[in-house]
This record gives sequence, structure tokens and C-alpha cells, in this order.
Amino acid sequence: MFSRSARQLGSGSILRSPLRSAFRRAASTTPTTPVPPPPPPIPATTPVVKKKRIGFFRLTWRLTWLSLLGSAAYLTYEVYKEVNPSPQIPQSPLKPNGNRRKTVVILGSGWGAISTLKHLDTSLYNVVVVSPRNYFLFTPLLPSVPTGTIDLKSIIDPVRTIAKSTPGEVTYLEAEATDIDIAKKQLTIQHSSYSATSGVHHVTIGGDEAKPIVATIEYDYLVFAIGAQTATFGIPGIEKYAYYLKETDDAARIRRSLFETIEASQLLPKDSEERKRLLSVVVCGGGPTGVELAAEIKDYIDEDLSRFVPGIENEMSVTLVEALPNVLNAFNHKLIEYTESIFEKQQLDLRVNTMVKKVDDKNVYATVKKSGGDTENVTIPYGTLVWATGNGPRPLTKAVAAQIEEQKTARRGLLIGEHLLVDGTDSVFALGDCTFTKNPPTAQVAHQEGIYLASHLAKLSKIDDLKYEIGQNTDPEQLVRLQRRLDRTQASILPFKYTHQGALAYIGSERAVADLVWGDWSNVSTGGSLTFLFWRSAYVSMMLGVRTKILVVSDWIKVKVFGRDCSKE
Amino acid sequence: MFSRSARQLGSGSILRSPLRSAFRRAASTTPTTPVPPPPPPIPATTPVVKKKRIGFFRLTWRLTWLSLLGSAAYLTYEVYKEVNPSPQIPQSPLKPNGNRRKTVVILGSGWGAISTLKHLDTSLYNVVVVSPRNYFLFTPLLPSVPTGTIDLKSIIDPVRTIAKSTPGEVTYLEAEATDIDIAKKQLTIQHSSYSATSGVHHVTIGGDEAKPIVATIEYDYLVFAIGAQTATFGIPGIEKYAYYLKETDDAARIRRSLFETIEASQLLPKDSEERKRLLSVVVCGGGPTGVELAAEIKDYIDEDLSRFVPGIENEMSVTLVEALPNVLNAFNHKLIEYTESIFEKQQLDLRVNTMVKKVDDKNVYATVKKSGGDTENVTIPYGTLVWATGNGPRPLTKAVAAQIEEQKTARRGLLIGEHLLVDGTDSVFALGDCTFTKNPPTAQVAHQEGIYLASHLAKLSKIDDLKYEIGQNTDPEQLVRLQRRLDRTQASILPFKYTHQGALAYIGSERAVADLVWGDWSNVSTGGSLTFLFWRSAYVSMMLGVRTKILVVSDWIKVKVFGRDCSKE
Repeated sequence: MFSRSARQLGSGSILRSPLRSAFRRAASTTPTTPVPPPPPPIPATTPVVKKKRIGFFRLTWRLTWLSLLGSAAYLTYEVYKEVNPSPQIPQSPLKPNGNRRKTVVILGSGWGAISTLKHLDTSLYNVVVVSPRNYFLFTPLLPSVPTGTIDLKSIIDPVRTIAKSTPGEVTYLEAEATDIDIAKKQLTIQHSSYSATSGVHHVTIGGDEAKPIVATIEYDYLVFAIGAQTATFGIPGIEKYAYYLKETDDAARIRRSLFETIEASQLLPKDSEERKRLLSVVVCGGGPTGVELAAEIKDYIDEDLSRFVPGIENEMSVTLVEALPNVLNAFNHKLIEYTESIFEKQQLDLRVNTMVKKVDDKNVYATVKKSGGDTENVTIPYGTLVWATGNGPRPLTKAVAAQIEEQKTARRGLLIGEHLLVDGTDSVFALGDCTFTKNPPTAQVAHQEGIYLASHLAKLSKIDDLKYEIGQNTDPEQLVRLQRRLDRTQASILPFKYTHQGALAYIGSERAVADLVWGDWSNVSTGGSLTFLFWRSAYVSMMLGVRTKILVVSDWIKVKVFGRDCSKE
Repeated sequence: MFSRSARQLGSGSILRSPLRSAFRRAASTTPTTPVPPPPPPIPATTPVVKKKRIGFFRLTWRLTWLSLLGSAAYLTYEVYKEVNPSPQIPQSPLKPNGNRRKTVVILGSGWGAISTLKHLDTSLYNVVVVSPRNYFLFTPLLPSVPTGTIDLKSIIDPVRTIAKSTPGEVTYLEAEATDIDIAKKQLTIQHSSYSATSGVHHVTIGGDEAKPIVATIEYDYLVFAIGAQTATFGIPGIEKYAYYLKETDDAARIRRSLFETIEASQLLPKDSEERKRLLSVVVCGGGPTGVELAAEIKDYIDEDLSRFVPGIENEMSVTLVEALPNVLNAFNHKLIEYTESIFEKQQLDLRVNTMVKKVDDKNVYATVKKSGGDTENVTIPYGTLVWATGNGPRPLTKAVAAQIEEQKTARRGLLIGEHLLVDGTDSVFALGDCTFTKNPPTAQVAHQEGIYLASHLAKLSKIDDLKYEIGQNTDPEQLVRLQRRLDRTQASILPFKYTHQGALAYIGSERAVADLVWGDWSNVSTGGSLTFLFWRSAYVSMMLGVRTKILVVSDWIKVKVFGRDCSKE
């Protein structure tokens, strides 16, 4: 057998590795078959072959560490740029050409406001940002925060840091706009402890009896991007008993509630109904937020909590409630089916066609639409309840709409024109979730609107400058040239057009679904573990700063290495 | 010029690099000066030198990456061990020898409790840990949290993780002990939302009208380690207006207050008194906690906040108030002087001999003892006030003391014997800040007491087992042997002895002070930047888990690279 295989190797093998030839030499010198002495080995050959191989490994090794070094250097440079921004052009009443520098006030610090700020050439205006929240929150990753997959700090970019990275000086004021006078182009703002309900139990700003600090600002252009607030559709009990998932505090509250209920349940006997109730998590809303939160909580229970509290994975339940017949309605039906099959495998209790009617301190009361058209009443006991659906206008949005004749029909948000100008005004732009358009109320839309508005404002500044220069100039030749430039700039103003790039959602067990659009012609729907990697890289690439990108990736690594912990904080 | 410098190089240079000699060769062949041909280069020499040099670099390089690889492998192993603890011996009514397995209840999750738990052979007892806080907090680094130098999560170890790393199964119950019956050896515990005051604004555990979840536990030995609470010494206003720095929530509250006041001040004119008040931070208490917090805040303002809000470093003030003539009273007088000189350089306003008398919503009212013996009244306006001093007994400690005749004189904490047994009881051990001893109320003392108590409990278990075996045995030879072992074990019980290892404090600008004790003979007092590095490594080495060690070090790196941010969260 051996000699046969050796012969086979010797004759038929098409491989020509030095190992193979050495083996052949060894086989041919077997003492049993007297053969003529092998040709004397050429001493040069073996070292050369060896050298080549070492050379190859060495090359690979060098390329590896050179590319690592290169990436490190690139990252370092990016970080350095972010930490040490270039000096900014200071604010001033006049521009270098003598024209008045107009004031742009940006209201808000969400997707629309920050996208505008980041893309705006802030040296063209005196820019003032007013928002009660002094940071931008990367909301797509918020559902990962309650379980500790992502640290809250990793998805936060301070407004001041973003403002520092723009060309011109930007003033930031932490305050809430309480009133806008559209006619006078004037804002009343007020510093109020944004999070007085949570964390700070005695805010002493201004003292016990003092009134809140109030100021007035004038604007030339107002960018209205204050977003929306969670709508409860008047369902009794939601506001009192449910947690939302919109702001940083919400994530912390959900985490605390999860742990409070889990820990409390451990004091009760195993067969107690109350224990079962405490260990039931109910998420209402089958959009990406609700789906991702439910999937994250289920993951956390199965992968991590079960290590610390053995058996808890069989006791806890996660229920996702959706009024429509499907979750993830924006997605392709195949992806919806895939998601539902994954939920079934994960034993995540999905209840579609289930309309919440009332909530009390222990139960969700809902009606289920049956296939026959009948409805059935169900009661779902809960320990932790999250309301992750519904957008409604904020009071300030309503107050603005009430001032303008053209907005009388606006109920779900401000009506805006093709240049994002609020209907009935000449100086107020609005974007994002505080508007009502044919586009969906997503981060993607607000982000694109911000980019558009930044370039639109730059064009308005140019037009203003050209008009000023025409007014100052007497040379007819120059005037013709200026007029031509003015016409060209005015012609370059195009309406805003939303380009849908797709939708992504994490559905648990390291799987995600993606509905991607490339141009008008291609639509890719994909789901699974590879999509999960895509989901992660897409989200990281969407983040604003290098710092937050690095922090989020290191959070993912941390969780891979250490798992998620089980402290209440 | 060229030829001169070339000649100089050719003759006088003592450097012998290949580049240099090549240069010399090139210089000597200049066509202008006809010279005899240079001696033929010895081809062997240069390659040998080159080889040796490359060999040296290669060796260094290899050693470097080998040691890096080695450290990485070691860390990975440690992390693996921590994440995948060995299986635990389950709890049971009887031990393998047939003796009853006694129950040890540990009350608390601070230094004393966790030190006991971590060092105890938990397979000898049925161990139950009861604490309303489900994690251990590494308090020495808490002053670094409000400014964001350290992330809160990085100094938290969940009780369940620590419990998992011990040899025997441990039950953890998140609850507060509300009553202890010393005579019956019985505890009443209650799950109450530990942090209901902050974060969770509607806790629904047990429902609106339901009573809290209550349970009863029996114990054989009780380890009473519930710590102390901040004492306000009855000074009016402290409880209402000041923040403490003892728990995780406190750090978050201080951060919020800092940012609320800074942001609010930006709406007021530069010369406003109210603006000045808002930008004044007052820390009361000149112990390590107060000193470190004041230093951290001052660092943060000068190094980071000034980048985001230019000029704020000249407007903000940090005041440290201490009633005694010195800060850091436990330290050598040279270190105290050094600290005070650093504070002066940093423009940190230090006010010693200043006794706080009253606090209202805007001002601290104090009396200053003058050198002549007179006192003067001063008013210090504040925007953020921190009370970082004073320890008083918790209500449960008082309730336990009230049950025991021998504790009638105990006012500041339980009186304990040399084996940490509470005077007047035979089964309750107490340690840490809930006791009153000749040792200072520090983490170091509680930690050492925990180690002692763990070994003491192991000896008690052994004695119990030997007594049980003697009772079961009839063989006189065996009985003699068992009796001898019993005598030896009983003799091995020694009283607790505290070994002071020194004191450390961070004082700002990357400087620290250290008073170190090695044995009885050596006492090193040192301060400065090197001590700062020592301070950091000492603290990291004191941390319980590999995870938290890595997290804290990576936090420090993060701050070095990115700086500290300015979001309120």
C-alpha cells in the first residue's frame, strides 16, 4: 500500500511542492528496492526554496503589519482632526464684502438640525443652535442600549463638538423655544432643566422662587427641526405606565425596570402568577424600533442573563404587539416572513392584529382581529411595558401652525414647500418629524433634508451677496457679469428630492433584514447573519464622529469578549 | 565649502555607519583632488556589521512582539476564566460528611460584604447575599465619574458575577433587610425599588395598590456589612440642596447639575451676579473624596470645557471647604503643604477652618476661624454644591443596636470584638462602616476585615465538622486524632489585626500624593506626577475583576485620545 501510494505520488501527482519532492526522494530511497544512487542534492536549491517560502511569509507578514500601521495612522489622523478642529471664522455683523451677515437659528439637536449644522458653511451666517438637549443622539442604535450591548455614551455627540468642526463660529444655547413670533422673526427661549423628572431631584438653577432664565433672539432664517413626540392615541394608561424609547433617559428607565422586575421576581415562589407577570416584557409597536428592542431583550435573556440566573430563560417572556397584520411594514413580504420565522425559533411571542385598548398597572388590554372578521378581547400581564410607536406634533409645532393661515389644516406636522420653506412664511424652514410630507418620518429623510437645506442656505447667501454687490457696483461690464452669476445661482436652486436608500432592522440572534435600493432599477432584499454584519457596518458608517464610531465598535468587541453584565446601572 | 565639510567628515568623524563610509568613499573620489585609490573595501566586513545590526533590531522587535503576544495571551486567559467560571458546588441541607450545612447571610454589597464573599470558601456554607444594590461599586474612583474621566459602568461589578466566581453556589436576593430578629436568627427582607427617586418615575412592581414583596430568611451566621450613610450633622439645607458622592446616582446628579448650571449661565450677560453664582462649584469636605472631586472638576474645566466654551475657565470657580485647619488630615504634613501649593497653582479656592452653618438654595453660610481666635461669617454663592463628608449609622444599624444590651452605648456604629463578632451576640459578625472601632472608616479596613472574616468562617466550619465527626466516631484512636485536629484549629483562630498600607489621593493636574507604609519600619511620603502613575496602577490593581481593570484603563486611554466630552449624559 505504501509503495503504491508512493508510486502514485511519484507519477501522477500534479503538485510540485518541495515537501512533495522530498517525500518522493525519501520514497525512492527505500532499502527494499535497490536503485541507482540518487543524484547528489544540489545544495543551492533547498536554501533557495526555503528562502522563497520565508520570503513569501515575510511579505505577507510585512503587508499585514504595514496595512495595520496604515489603518492606525489613518484613524489617528481622523481622531486628531476631530479632537483638534481648525480655528473658526468668528461671528460678526458684516461679511468681508461689507454685506450684512444674516443670522440663522437652528432649533433642535436631532437628525434634521444636526444634519443641517454639519453640512452648512457656517462662515456665511451667524449661526445659533438652540436645543434643550446638548447632544445629538444616534437613535438607530438606541434599542441596543437598555440591554447594555451599546453604552449610551457611545452614541452621543455633543452639539458643541459638532459645531466646532464647522468653518464658522457657532453659538449654542441650551434652552427650549417657548414662543416664536413669525411676523417679528423673533424667538423666546427659556432654560429649563431638561431632565428634571429623572436624575436631578432638586434643581436649584435660579433658586427656589426664581423664574426660569428667559432670553429673546432675532433671526433672519429659522430652521425648525424640533422633531415629534410619542403619541399615545389617547389610549388610557400608556402615559402613566409605559416606557417610551426616544430619548436617553428612556433607555435607562427600561433597563432599570427590567432589572427591578427580574430581581423582585426572585423573592416569589416559582409557581406564583405574580412572578410570571413580573418576568413578562411587552413591547408595543412592530416598526424597526419595537422589533429591535424586543430582539435585543430576547438575546440578552438567552445569551447572558441565563448565565447569572440559571433557568430564567424559560421563565421570562418577551411579547411584541402590533395592531397591523405584519411587523416591519416597510419591508418586503419575504423579509417579514423571515423575521416571523426567526421570532418563532427564538420563542419571541409575536401578536399581530392586536390593538391595545387600555393599560393598567399590571395588564395590557387589547382586541385581536380574527381572520373571520370577529374580534376577541385579550389580557396580557406585564412587568415591563414599552410603547415604541406613534409620532405626534410637539406643542410648539402646534403653536407655530396656529399663527399661520396656510397651516390651518396641518394636524400631523407643518406643511412645507419644495424648498422646505414652511407654507405661509418666507423665512422659516422646517424638516424632519415636525413636518408632514409624503416622505416617511425617518432619520434618513431628515438627514437628506438637512444636507439639502445646508446647500440651499449657502445659495441664498450667495444670491444675497450678489444682489448686494450689484447694488454697490456702477461698472456696467461688472454688472452684467454679476447679473449673469446671479441668474446662474438662482437657476441652480432645485426642489428637495428624497432618495430612498433602503431600510434595515436587527431581528435577533445576530441576524438582520435589509431592503436596499440602488438607484431606480435595483432592489435587494436580504436577511440573515451576513446582513447582520452589513447592518452593523452601515450603522457605524452613518455615525457622525470618528470617536463614536470607535466607541460603538469597541462596545461590540467588549460584549463579544465579556458578555453583557447584569447590574442595574 | 563642500570639499571642506567632506574632508572634515573623512578625517575627524568618529561615526562608523555604512552611510557615512559610503559618503566618505564618494567624497574621496571627487575628480578635483587626485588622491591614491582607496584601499579595496573588504566585502566581508560591511555585511557582517549590517547583519549584526539587523540581528539586534530583529531581536528587539521579536522580543517586543513576543512579550506583547504573551501579555495578550495572559489577559485572554484571565478574561476567559472570568467569563467562564468553573461549575459551582450546589447548595444542600447536608455536607458530604453528613453534617448540617449552615447558612451564612451576607447583608450588603460594599467593600466589607464583597470582600467576605470573594474570599469565602462558599462550598462550606449555604451562602445568601442580600442587598438592595445588585452590584459592587469601586468607590475610590467615584470622584472621576462626574467629569467623565471614568465611565460609571467601568467601576461596577455585578454581585452575581462575583458570586459565580466562588467555589459554591450563592443565592443573591435584591432586597433590603427591614428587620433582624437576633434571638430567632431571622431576617425580614423587602424588595423595594432602590433608585425610585431617580430614573424610574413610575415603578409598577407589585402594582399601584400592592404592598412591597416581603420575605423571611433564617440564618446561622449573619455578616452585617451595610455600610454607613452620609451624615449632615443637622446642618439646615444640606439634605435639600447638596449632592452627596456615595452612590452611582450621586455621580450622575453632580454631572447633570454641572452642565445645567453651565448651560444656563450662557443665557445671562457676562457681568451678571447670577451667572457668576451658577458657575461656582462648592465642595464641602477636605478628605480624599472631596479633594479628588474638586481636583477632577478643576481639571475638566481647564483641560476640556475651555475648548468647547472658550473663556469659561476664567469665569468658573471651584471652592473646597474644610472645617479643620488642613485638608487630607490622614497625610504627612509635607504632602498637605504640597497639595495646598498645587491647589494655589491651579487657582482652586481652598477654604480651611471654615465651618458650614446653613445652606439655602443659592448660598452656603459659614463661619471662619481666624488665627487670633475670632470668627467671621462668610457667604459663598454656589451653582452646584457637593457634601462629601460625614458618616452616620443607617436606621437598620440603630435598630440592631437597640435590641442588644451590650450595644446601648453604640452611637456611631456597632461595637465588635476581636473576631468581628458583634458584642452581645454569638452569630452576628459586623464589619466596615457600620461598625465603630479604633480603625478608620475606610475601604482598606473593610476589605481586610472581609478577608479575615472569610478565613474565620472557614475555620468555624472546620471546627463544626470536627465536632460532628467526634460525635459520630467511636474508635478511640481516631477520636484522639480528631480531638488534636480540633485543638489545633481552635488555636489557629487569631484576632483581627489591621495593617495600614497607606493612603492615596489625586490632587489635580496629573499629580497625586501617597503616604505608604511597608511593615512597621518604613514610611514613604511622596507627591507628584510619578505618584500619579502609582496612584493609577494601585487603584487598578485593587479592582476586583479583569473586566473592570481593562475598562478603567481603556477609559483613561479614551480620555487621553479624545478628551472628555460635554454632553449632559
